[in-house]
Amino acid sequence: MTGDLTLMHTDLVAALDIGGTKIAGALVDGGGRIVVRAQRPTPAQQDGDTVMRAVEEVIGELTAAPLWSRADAVGIGSAGPVDASAGTVSPVNVPGWRDYPLVARVRAATGGLPVELIGDGVAITAAEHWQGAARGHDNALCMVVSTGVGGGLVLDGRLHPGPTGNAGHIGHISVDLDGDPCPCGSRGCVERIASGPNIARRALEAGWLPGPDGDTSAAAVAAAARAGDPVAVASFERAAQALAAGIAATATLVEIDIAVIGGGVGKAGEVLFAPLRKALADYATLSFVQRLTVVPAQMGTDAGLVGAAAAVLGRRADAAAAGV
Amino acid sequence: MTGDLTLMHTDLVAALDIGGTKIAGALVDGGGRIVVRAQRPTPAQQDGDTVMRAVEEVIGELTAAPLWSRADAVGIGSAGPVDASAGTVSPVNVPGWRDYPLVARVRAATGGLPVELIGDGVAITAAEHWQGAARGHDNALCMVVSTGVGGGLVLDGRLHPGPTGNAGHIGHISVDLDGDPCPCGSRGCVERIASGPNIARRALEAGWLPGPDGDTSAAAVAAAARAGDPVAVASFERAAQALAAGIAATATLVEIDIAVIGGGVGKAGEVLFAPLRKALADYATLSFVQRLTVVPAQMGTDAGLVGAAAAVLGRRADAAAAGV
Repeated sequence: MTGDLTLMHTDLVAALDIGGTKIAGALVDGGGRIVVRAQRPTPAQQDGDTVMRAVEEVIGELTAAPLWSRADAVGIGSAGPVDASAGTVSPVNVPGWRDYPLVARVRAATGGLPVELIGDGVAITAAEHWQGAARGHDNALCMVVSTGVGGGLVLDGRLHPGPTGNAGHIGHISVDLDGDPCPCGSRGCVERIASGPNIARRALEAGWLPGPDGDTSAAAVAAAARAGDPVAVASFERAAQALAAGIAATATLVEIDIAVIGGGVGKAGEVLFAPLRKALADYATLSFVQRLTVVPAQMGTDAGLVGAAAAVLGRRADAAAAGV
Repeated sequence: MTGDLTLMHTDLVAALDIGGTKIAGALVDGGGRIVVRAQRPTPAQQDGDTVMRAVEEVIGELTAAPLWSRADAVGIGSAGPVDASAGTVSPVNVPGWRDYPLVARVRAATGGLPVELIGDGVAITAAEHWQGAARGHDNALCMVVSTGVGGGLVLDGRLHPGPTGNAGHIGHISVDLDGDPCPCGSRGCVERIASGPNIARRALEAGWLPGPDGDTSAAAVAAAARAGDPVAVASFERAAQALAAGIAATATLVEIDIAVIGGGVGKAGEVLFAPLRKALADYATLSFVQRLTVVPAQMGTDAGLVGAAAAVLGRRADAAAAGV
């Protein structure tokens, strides 16, 4: 994807990673290196224009950089839901933005550059496929298991954002149709069982006692599980079972051969991955999904920025391949 | 897809539809019309070579037709699992065929024509997308709900068979991770809840009494439900719930905007579709899947043949578009 592009005069892509906590921006080169960066906290509880001003400040720092003249497009990975077809975003954790015309505003703030919008799970997937754990895999699911559960898909060697940029949203498929109500309105969603807060909640409800520091995070439950606490182990096993059912469903539907898991819960290590591999064998039963593997993510905190850039570069490479 | 192709001298495609009950063959023109057809019962319980002889008899009838000289490729839709990458099939209901090299044998029987293999659910999908209920939809799930539950996907305007030709296998995704064991080895699969035999089983277990003719099929349960029998209604509602959870999961993962339901159970009408639409609203909650509609299939019993031909024609159109 990068070979020809690094020889072009306009060889940089501007990337924005917009979440409920921070708004990050960067200029990214054709090799995925970040050559300029900027960041602001997200004023998530304020009105939409105030949030946009924080984005514009990030963009302002980028456009002030001498390298800006070499950027010719913008990729945005945003907390979802997004609507790539309308160019709008409605991030759950940013209530001031509902059907907010982010693409038009970013285009205006960058002097009319073309803008590509995808969901944050799709952006992470683009990064893992370009340079991380999904590299070389033509059919992959990449997930972020953290406060929420998000994801994205690579199909036939290409990022599959879907028409609205939200495809791969594995956190909100139901694997327990009679299960607990999920804040999304459905029941028994993967996120409702496997997210960090739900791992912690389930352990506490089953009698797990946090240590003297009072830490009741999923990371603390993971530490207890590593020390052999059976209630902590059981909560991770249940999360692993839900993740396995969701990953198996994805493989059965679109024939992925690898699932990559990142995010805070993804960092729990064997406490998560050992029961996950075991449960995957229980749910991924058809012949064509039995070779499915599950591995930890490799990209770090810049994955969202690198992935937003990758989405632009990938779209450009597809267009070049099609002779457009 | 068909415009240019109908002008070519070799303007026909040979199609095979291989199931556990019958082996159908046809020559199909660029407009999807069947111009020659042949059929044999499947000797499903006999050895693999005996089953293959039935296929060869069907092919023999086609090759004997004067129009055969205008056919230049073969499309096969087969009961699954199939392995398009290996060219083999292992249909659950044809035990004599395990990793059976069907593509090589069909190629040999047709004088070396190129052969395209897909699963039967994928073939049905190709037909519905070409000429049926999914026509004009770039992102669709087509299902067969019958003795089993199968399916296929159209993504970005193209059939998505997946690397092995099995994608869209919605019958074996788990929507109830603690649910009843499924013959596939998993638990709570859509098929385990929504197939015709399971609709009938559940009604009988809950006390439904068949009529004087002793008919205990899902069609009889559907008739009872239409007459207001609450147990029969409840069994269809449960099937609808499982189908809705599976369809919503598919939409959430790959952003389909229509689900087409065929097969015997799909013919039950409002007894199925009314609770299905209601349940879909319960499970398809995210903004980008709320426009999802669910409709009955339009193609008849030739869908498998037409779809097998459509897969060949679609692949050819893709190659032409890519300048290959």
